[in-house]
Amino acid sequence: MKQTLVALALTGVFSGALAQSSVSIYGTLDAGMSRRTDTDVTAVGKRDNNKLGFRGVEDLGNGLKALFQLEIRYEPDTGVVESTVRPLFQGQSRVGLQGDFGTLRLGRGLTAFQETSTAFEPWSGMPAVAGYQTDLQVAGYTSDPLSVAGNSLNRFSNAVFYNSPMIGGIFQLNVTVATREANNNPLIIGRGTAAAPQFPANSSAAVYPYSVSATVTQGPFAAYAAAERNGVDTKLWSVGASFKPIPDLKLMGSYQRQDQDFSVPINPITKAWLIGANYTIGAGLVRAGFGHKTPDNALNVPTIAKTRQFSLGYDYNLSPRTYLYVDGTRRKATTAATFNFYSLGIHHNF
Amino acid sequence: MKQTLVALALTGVFSGALAQSSVSIYGTLDAGMSRRTDTDVTAVGKRDNNKLGFRGVEDLGNGLKALFQLEIRYEPDTGVVESTVRPLFQGQSRVGLQGDFGTLRLGRGLTAFQETSTAFEPWSGMPAVAGYQTDLQVAGYTSDPLSVAGNSLNRFSNAVFYNSPMIGGIFQLNVTVATREANNNPLIIGRGTAAAPQFPANSSAAVYPYSVSATVTQGPFAAYAAAERNGVDTKLWSVGASFKPIPDLKLMGSYQRQDQDFSVPINPITKAWLIGANYTIGAGLVRAGFGHKTPDNALNVPTIAKTRQFSLGYDYNLSPRTYLYVDGTRRKATTAATFNFYSLGIHHNF
Amino acid sequence: MKQTLVALALTGVFSGALAQSSVSIYGTLDAGMSRRTDTDVTAVGKRDNNKLGFRGVEDLGNGLKALFQLEIRYEPDTGVVESTVRPLFQGQSRVGLQGDFGTLRLGRGLTAFQETSTAFEPWSGMPAVAGYQTDLQVAGYTSDPLSVAGNSLNRFSNAVFYNSPMIGGIFQLNVTVATREANNNPLIIGRGTAAAPQFPANSSAAVYPYSVSATVTQGPFAAYAAAERNGVDTKLWSVGASFKPIPDLKLMGSYQRQDQDFSVPINPITKAWLIGANYTIGAGLVRAGFGHKTPDNALNVPTIAKTRQFSLGYDYNLSPRTYLYVDGTRRKATTAATFNFYSLGIHHNF
Repeated sequence: MKQTLVALALTGVFSGALAQSSVSIYGTLDAGMSRRTDTDVTAVGKRDNNKLGFRGVEDLGNGLKALFQLEIRYEPDTGVVESTVRPLFQGQSRVGLQGDFGTLRLGRGLTAFQETSTAFEPWSGMPAVAGYQTDLQVAGYTSDPLSVAGNSLNRFSNAVFYNSPMIGGIFQLNVTVATREANNNPLIIGRGTAAAPQFPANSSAAVYPYSVSATVTQGPFAAYAAAERNGVDTKLWSVGASFKPIPDLKLMGSYQRQDQDFSVPINPITKAWLIGANYTIGAGLVRAGFGHKTPDNALNVPTIAKTRQFSLGYDYNLSPRTYLYVDGTRRKATTAATFNFYSLGIHHNF
Repeated sequence: MKQTLVALALTGVFSGALAQSSVSIYGTLDAGMSRRTDTDVTAVGKRDNNKLGFRGVEDLGNGLKALFQLEIRYEPDTGVVESTVRPLFQGQSRVGLQGDFGTLRLGRGLTAFQETSTAFEPWSGMPAVAGYQTDLQVAGYTSDPLSVAGNSLNRFSNAVFYNSPMIGGIFQLNVTVATREANNNPLIIGRGTAAAPQFPANSSAAVYPYSVSATVTQGPFAAYAAAERNGVDTKLWSVGASFKPIPDLKLMGSYQRQDQDFSVPINPITKAWLIGANYTIGAGLVRAGFGHKTPDNALNVPTIAKTRQFSLGYDYNLSPRTYLYVDGTRRKATTAATFNFYSLGIHHNF
Repeated sequence: MKQTLVALALTGVFSGALAQSSVSIYGTLDAGMSRRTDTDVTAVGKRDNNKLGFRGVEDLGNGLKALFQLEIRYEPDTGVVESTVRPLFQGQSRVGLQGDFGTLRLGRGLTAFQETSTAFEPWSGMPAVAGYQTDLQVAGYTSDPLSVAGNSLNRFSNAVFYNSPMIGGIFQLNVTVATREANNNPLIIGRGTAAAPQFPANSSAAVYPYSVSATVTQGPFAAYAAAERNGVDTKLWSVGASFKPIPDLKLMGSYQRQDQDFSVPINPITKAWLIGANYTIGAGLVRAGFGHKTPDNALNVPTIAKTRQFSLGYDYNLSPRTYLYVDGTRRKATTAATFNFYSLGIHHNF
């Protein structure tokens, strides 16, 4: 858009063409101090994903629009992109068309399930240690098991993304289907290690990965149902709902079930659920949640073989774009030490 | 430009300074579904290079301008930058001055030959599988043989770029000269492998690489002649022409000859030619081409030792910035299996 | 800001909201030809750091502002980011608040000492071969010894940055404190090699790294004092001053002392000083300097064990954003060959 602004200003044709062209820069910079009780180092970290993005919409006439979006993700404490195995445009890289038929895009991005479910999570789907998005809300599931360890867990590459329009003002359907291509990563060993790969190197997918979600929104009530299958035939389904008894209070809950029968020898079923609340008080927002997960791929010793997480957070809004936050969480898991986590930081959208 | 806009708007001096300063963001996002008949996977791919660029022009007065351009290249299907061995600003990174004398720039970019010849190729120089730019139009030649395999083949780094003004309204001269520096890449083995390097690691060039092209444009007729030499003393020359018998039809053809006498023991000469057409029908554009190459560095068995490629494509313009496309091609080569390739996608400029 | 410009222009509410939102793109592209007399290759290189940055300021009301800044660094001769071990946002990645209390930021950036001292260096802190910033002005000290060789030497990651307001219009205090976190780099061997690491891999810091600087500015006179300690308990202090006898002439000098007693067995003290001048003549600026350093960690043979550097440069301003330059320098050091260095280039800010 900037080139257009300059060119147009010089030729004196300013206003008419603005709808014609646009590149928007947007992003998030979130940094804070944090402390985990099972480590002895106070750290500078983050609560949210940090983004630097470029997007645009072109009006093609007759209600048709062309859309694109490219999103860099990075760690502000060290200035690096997220993990050396993740792509530059880790957030997304998609192009497509929008019209009466809905939105159809090609490229890489969050799957239909992953994008839908975050609206029913008390930390708004942020990957905060206090939040539930990265583990409990997906029952430990990964959308992308054929890429190297350390890659993104909730995206499809080489995919087609469809979002229906709002049907009857209340209903929306979202579908993502990926090809069986290998994902262009240096060495594909699934969630194993180089010495003991879980899948052969550079595997192409065993099945076509897909993800489907449907949402209903009516007055103070919203709900979703979703199903997804990844490239190694692991299946997940999830349902969730939210309700606002008063405008300042949103209650929410979800349930998810992962079936790894195709790749895991014992105990292939993982179940998780979470409940949460968001409560607005003046310029503040209180976040609270409790979540529970039974282990996957482990002997299920009933009394301890579970993950439990309780979290409490508070945002203080300095403006619609900037807030300060404090989080506290306690997490018990079978496979790792129980710890408390505290953080204090600033979240800035631009 | 943006910072200037803000600052100027706040101080109330808006209009006058726009010519003074400018950063433009521009780019291309092209994604499509494709199928090669010699593989069993339908893929999400591209027809064109995908770009995210930043450029600006500063008016210095008296007809003198300062120019810069930085261009990221990426793959939208996976969100990664093009190949791990390519630079972030793979497209180009150049700065310089423009005036009555022409344009003089320093940095990295397409050579004079590579930039000129793409205007005489029926896929407009796009690296489409259906197109001819990456192989037949250059007779298999690479401008940058001293970088690692997987790098860009048509650029000089560490170079000086000169473009003359249009002389007499019809003639232009372009010259690129590079230094003999190694190109700052991790390990330089030319087109060999780590086990059998074609050139010693981190070689500096044997000769000064240069590229020269000249163009003539008059009415419906255009032509070019070009010569280039790379860092291992491989030489290439090429001529081409285009003609528009009617405004909607452009016919084109080119011939190129590569001489690898300095580095290849047998059959060091490669010759290639191609003919093509672009035909505009309403909002559509038909692309067609046929190309032919004799093999380099191989025993020349006359009946089979040739590459032949026939391609047909169609663009449907949704706007001046966005089009849908379909391509089909058939390629026979000595060194690889014969295959057909089909693709269908969307091309969006921003 | 761009998205805001579009949105605002379309809704007709242009001026009021500009203070509300802003993303500015800025940067530097500097490229030139250079020659070192101890090599036989003429090179395309740089005099200054090359930057592509994104920054913004949000007015939160009551004198409070939110700030962010992200800065990519790259080499224009080859289009790559600076060194493969450096982060994408090598320049800085910081977010924070500014108000009556000063400026408080979190993330990665130049330390208080490194940022302050560059204003007292005749090449304005540019990392030019002719300049003094990278070696003599810091007495060979590095702010970040626990990252891999090749990383930035003058920044803290995982840090808190505080700048006081100007007190009494003449005095400012700057403080940077980092955590003891490892810096997220692939393998941490300090300034050693993989075979002989100077510090254990992935060390966390031995002490909290900090940096403090204070400046006084009054009329034609300015001065600073600074002290810094890095993660392996190396200490540095530095003082410097500048004076303008006439408006077109700035004289400057500084002294710095590094103490590596914690990690270096012999001769742990390094001392350096430099003097310089900047003289404006019409559209030109003459830069001159002489610097001297005694060796660190070496037997101190008095007559030769010293680094001495004399440099002379000239900038010719084509505009406030663009200049041409020529540099010449002669450097004698104990540990390397004596050489002369000459360069000629263009420096463009956008």
